Amino acid sequence: MASPFIEKLLLASRANNSLLCIGLDPDPGTMPNIEVFSFNKAIIDATSDLVCAFKPNFAFYEALGLEGITALKQTVDYVPKNIPIIADAKRGDVGNTAKAYATALFDTFGFDAATVNPFLGRDSLQPFLEREDKGVFILCRTSNPGAADLQDLILTRTPGEPGSPLFEIIARLAAEWNSAGNIGLVVGATYPKDLKRIRDMCPDMPFLIPGIGPQGGDLAAAVSWGTNLQGDMAIISSSRQVLYASRGSDFAQAARKTALHLRSEINRWRSSGVTT
Amino acid sequence: MASPFIEKLLLASRANNSLLCIGLDPDPGTMPNIEVFSFNKAIIDATSDLVCAFKPNFAFYEALGLEGITALKQTVDYVPKNIPIIADAKRGDVGNTAKAYATALFDTFGFDAATVNPFLGRDSLQPFLEREDKGVFILCRTSNPGAADLQDLILTRTPGEPGSPLFEIIARLAAEWNSAGNIGLVVGATYPKDLKRIRDMCPDMPFLIPGIGPQGGDLAAAVSWGTNLQGDMAIISSSRQVLYASRGSDFAQAARKTALHLRSEINRWRSSGVTT
Repeated sequence: MASPFIEKLLLASRANNSLLCIGLDPDPGTMPNIEVFSFNKAIIDATSDLVCAFKPNFAFYEALGLEGITALKQTVDYVPKNIPIIADAKRGDVGNTAKAYATALFDTFGFDAATVNPFLGRDSLQPFLEREDKGVFILCRTSNPGAADLQDLILTRTPGEPGSPLFEIIARLAAEWNSAGNIGLVVGATYPKDLKRIRDMCPDMPFLIPGIGPQGGDLAAAVSWGTNLQGDMAIISSSRQVLYASRGSDFAQAARKTALHLRSEINRWRSSGVTT
Repeated sequence: MASPFIEKLLLASRANNSLLCIGLDPDPGTMPNIEVFSFNKAIIDATSDLVCAFKPNFAFYEALGLEGITALKQTVDYVPKNIPIIADAKRGDVGNTAKAYATALFDTFGFDAATVNPFLGRDSLQPFLEREDKGVFILCRTSNPGAADLQDLILTRTPGEPGSPLFEIIARLAAEWNSAGNIGLVVGATYPKDLKRIRDMCPDMPFLIPGIGPQGGDLAAAVSWGTNLQGDMAIISSSRQVLYASRGSDFAQAARKTALHLRSEINRWRSSGVTT
């Protein structure tokens, strides 16, 4: 049986026939001249029938101080109850503190899922993993160019053997730690071969896949290699491309148009697949 | 010449003859029945002549929602201007988003320094490193038991070549990236031999050293092996031991008493040193 978060994700994904997740990342330098919550509200109203999830990234709200945090809380409360909302916070801290972060994201703000950073090891994730009612997306292979600095380092257990890159080790650990079935992975679309490899290792885990659009990830590969055999379990995230489709007063209609286009592009690759 | 943050740190450390940093981590389950900012204010008033820095951890404030974030901002503003205040936030995200985090911590909140997570690689730290006026503490060897899960893995860039533990690779990268002289490392007191090893690799970098007290780290080793040859550049952090020395109305006096004791214990080891 699917965990409560995965069930909610699949229901939303099927109801809206969508693997698209919109990243709600309000950037005052790029967005129309409007309050953050009003902006998010308009985007949500225009797209909530087209997505499988929404995903605000904390950085953009924290940069705006108290007003930003207020807008974030309003946004979480505003998202329709049938659509999962993922806290993109990439938290990771020692036990006692990790517990406070889990409380912050899941209870104080009320998110359905959160992204976490595995660098501090299992005990730092434990307060998140214990929340069987919530989803926990562990950073595995991030979409940025610098990802390679650490995530590509090779572990050689036996001299002479080829070894595995750190991101594969994380995928293996995530599978090991997944007793509650509430773990997912963050895997960037910008490294499609790695995405394929990780999907082979974790055939049924939900993958949160950023990096299409401005970051240059290939949508066809992201969908074909990111989904499971049933064409599900990939959450293809887009932020700027949708939010800032227009910077004029028609921004919400423009966002809807882009979301419609992305949803159908995604669904096109979802059924057909690409070959290696 | 020392970077502005290191200069501020050394001045505070010398003025107060102290390597002690107090972690301002308000936990409603443990603290006296008082508002968070009032609690912090009393702790700061009672100890600001005994420390080289204060270090609030974001998790405890985020768990309290808007009220917590308000108290955090009030706390940053209240700390005397000659005492550095470090954002223990362990942030790490892709370029555009990392920039928003750097803005949040350094400008919106006004911290002097921040802890960051290196898992996403150099470009994720760049917006922090570019702030030559600020300090950036990169997680290297954390104090928790699960630290070993990833940080102890023996990794290499070139398959077949002998590797080094991940924490050593991070120390090396940090030294490489330190062109502005504003980088420090977070190294837990709970792994004293690793601390010694990292100090040998980075002889003059400031180390933020958590893990003494309740986490079981050995203070003598933390000080002797954590300081540089001049007996400086170690920031020995204590949170619960100081904050919750008493849970009664005398909590501030009790915190002062504990801070005085810790400062003198630290200074005892600072001059004498321990042998391997």
